[in-house]
Amino acid sequence: MAKSPVDQHPVKAFGWAATDSSGHLSPFKFSRRETGDEDVRFKVLYCGICHSDLHSIKNEWGNSTYPLLPGYHDCRHEIVGEVTEVGSKVKKVKVGDKVGVGCLVGACHSCDSCVNNLENYCSKLILTYNSIDTDGTITYGGYSDHMVANQRYIVVFPDNMPLDAGAPLLCAGITVYSPLKYFGLAEPGKHIGVVGLGGLGHVAVKFAKAFGAKVTVISTSPNKMKEALEHLGADSFLASRDPQQMQAATGTLDGIIDTVSAVHPILPLVSLLKSNGKLIMVGAPEKPLELPVFPLIMGRKTVAGSGIGGMKETQEMIDFAAKHNITADIEVISMDYVNTAMERLVKADVRYRFVIDIGKTLVATKP
Amino acid sequence: MAKSPVDQHPVKAFGWAATDSSGHLSPFKFSRRETGDEDVRFKVLYCGICHSDLHSIKNEWGNSTYPLLPGYHDCRHEIVGEVTEVGSKVKKVKVGDKVGVGCLVGACHSCDSCVNNLENYCSKLILTYNSIDTDGTITYGGYSDHMVANQRYIVVFPDNMPLDAGAPLLCAGITVYSPLKYFGLAEPGKHIGVVGLGGLGHVAVKFAKAFGAKVTVISTSPNKMKEALEHLGADSFLASRDPQQMQAATGTLDGIIDTVSAVHPILPLVSLLKSNGKLIMVGAPEKPLELPVFPLIMGRKTVAGSGIGGMKETQEMIDFAAKHNITADIEVISMDYVNTAMERLVKADVRYRFVIDIGKTLVATKP
Repeated sequence: MAKSPVDQHPVKAFGWAATDSSGHLSPFKFSRRETGDEDVRFKVLYCGICHSDLHSIKNEWGNSTYPLLPGYHDCRHEIVGEVTEVGSKVKKVKVGDKVGVGCLVGACHSCDSCVNNLENYCSKLILTYNSIDTDGTITYGGYSDHMVANQRYIVVFPDNMPLDAGAPLLCAGITVYSPLKYFGLAEPGKHIGVVGLGGLGHVAVKFAKAFGAKVTVISTSPNKMKEALEHLGADSFLASRDPQQMQAATGTLDGIIDTVSAVHPILPLVSLLKSNGKLIMVGAPEKPLELPVFPLIMGRKTVAGSGIGGMKETQEMIDFAAKHNITADIEVISMDYVNTAMERLVKADVRYRFVIDIGKTLVATKP
Repeated sequence: MAKSPVDQHPVKAFGWAATDSSGHLSPFKFSRRETGDEDVRFKVLYCGICHSDLHSIKNEWGNSTYPLLPGYHDCRHEIVGEVTEVGSKVKKVKVGDKVGVGCLVGACHSCDSCVNNLENYCSKLILTYNSIDTDGTITYGGYSDHMVANQRYIVVFPDNMPLDAGAPLLCAGITVYSPLKYFGLAEPGKHIGVVGLGGLGHVAVKFAKAFGAKVTVISTSPNKMKEALEHLGADSFLASRDPQQMQAATGTLDGIIDTVSAVHPILPLVSLLKSNGKLIMVGAPEKPLELPVFPLIMGRKTVAGSGIGGMKETQEMIDFAAKHNITADIEVISMDYVNTAMERLVKADVRYRFVIDIGKTLVATKP
């Protein structure tokens, strides 16, 4: 008799998962594979709650697997913990090291993307949760007691990087770091706009400042100005619904990191760009946006997308963040608070990222 | 008494112009300035008809000036001829040289764009027609007996470049050459798609081939396949309305030059791109297109616009074209055929560019 998808592996695991598109999470028993030669196993201590988790739970991107395997997807991708076991071929880390796993746990390792350390763009990439692993089983993320992953996907946490406030960098951090670097925006003197001051946006401000850029936060909420300028260190603030402010800033930005995942107009953002300026979309609205072509042509402007980053760059990002004391601003919560946190996340009621204290609070939720 | 806009200059001129948004052109007397120290005056021999002329005549871009100056705008921007007079400071050309003027006749010469030889992106650029010149008068283009322009905007035609078939390169040529170069697509081994086989598209195929690329023509008209492959030398052809063909070509292109100026779906084009691929829009649809964001993010793909090129690059383009025997495929017409040609252009009934033989046929239309 075929084993249930949650019992296919020898190592028992416990976590929280969504069982349908209601979005409600509950305690969940499953299993993980044994530690392979190239694998690193670690006890999960913290896991961030990413906005894309919300998309997945409610199947807003239409690719969640619960219609196929109801009850068995889920668990998340900003995971940190302490190594408990390593495979025979693992030299990168040892038992006791602090490590993290981000959005990826596998890829083909032979395509152009993989060869160039861009596993994130491999067409066979395996996501940390809700993805089909090489052995045909479903991947489970970090709302769980332990995690096992191939060492290629293990990020080594520098000693001075706090585990809780560092966890969100594994998704939010690399998501903004990578395009700043790739699109030539990570240089002193650049003027960078950051649209949306949430989980992604607030770390985008920190990285852009660390690169030496002048940073303007652009938000629909004028009441975020003080926070942006005084707390996050942005140089200026634009209320995107104030036409006069927007008009006055026409043609001033070299690049914009747009973190908004709701449908929104991009013409006002394109107008803020200098010639050759780049609008980089890292949030993923469910529906197409309106693309004005003439304004792009008149200034050789770019609208591009960027999704997380490869593993080499993710390690580089964490090392850079450690060196520049960049962490996420977080609210640490207990495991049983996760459903409330999800509700608050829908309302953007968090500054700026929830991180679940898995290490201290998961076990108490075991039935 | 203020002089009429057409009589403000001392040198009489004659050409054809549109007098309202009906699109009808008719004979038209106006004037041009004297030859300044930095100016080059030339007898116009040929002038191409660009698709953007159609947009302007009918005011589809909403920026034509006839609501302000009815009857006085117009005359076009792929102009070639023979120098008849040069100002005292002109060293670039001498009387008798063959020269051209493209879309631009002026800019501020001090902004970042101008300093970097990108006059085309200067916010104070002066277009060859339908623009306000530095002296406050309206600029008139090449459907006229002679032309005068600052030497910076004069393109020297190499000896082996035919004037008639070379004229369209001054707009169509530079419009596709510049983005191929700027976006890193002008390299041997790249696989380039060209969408739309019209005035811009057919020269895009020629330039991309000359750069050593593999070229795929993408068109809604399957009957253009033979032409694309046998006549223009494209390597392959995709009928964009054939889902199987499009599906089979997923993820194969490094870049796409999209010349279509009608509203059209871009998701199928984005899907043809490899990771890091670039979709470059050089046609300007009147309405916004639908931009799918998730597909951009999943492959770090770019949608960008590009508009003509700077004068330094335009000269480089003409020299490159001459070296590689690239010209436009043209149908030479007489001046009095222009309205018929415009009607045929609306129906895309030309392979691939009309060029008016101004030198031999304009004078006969003088009232």
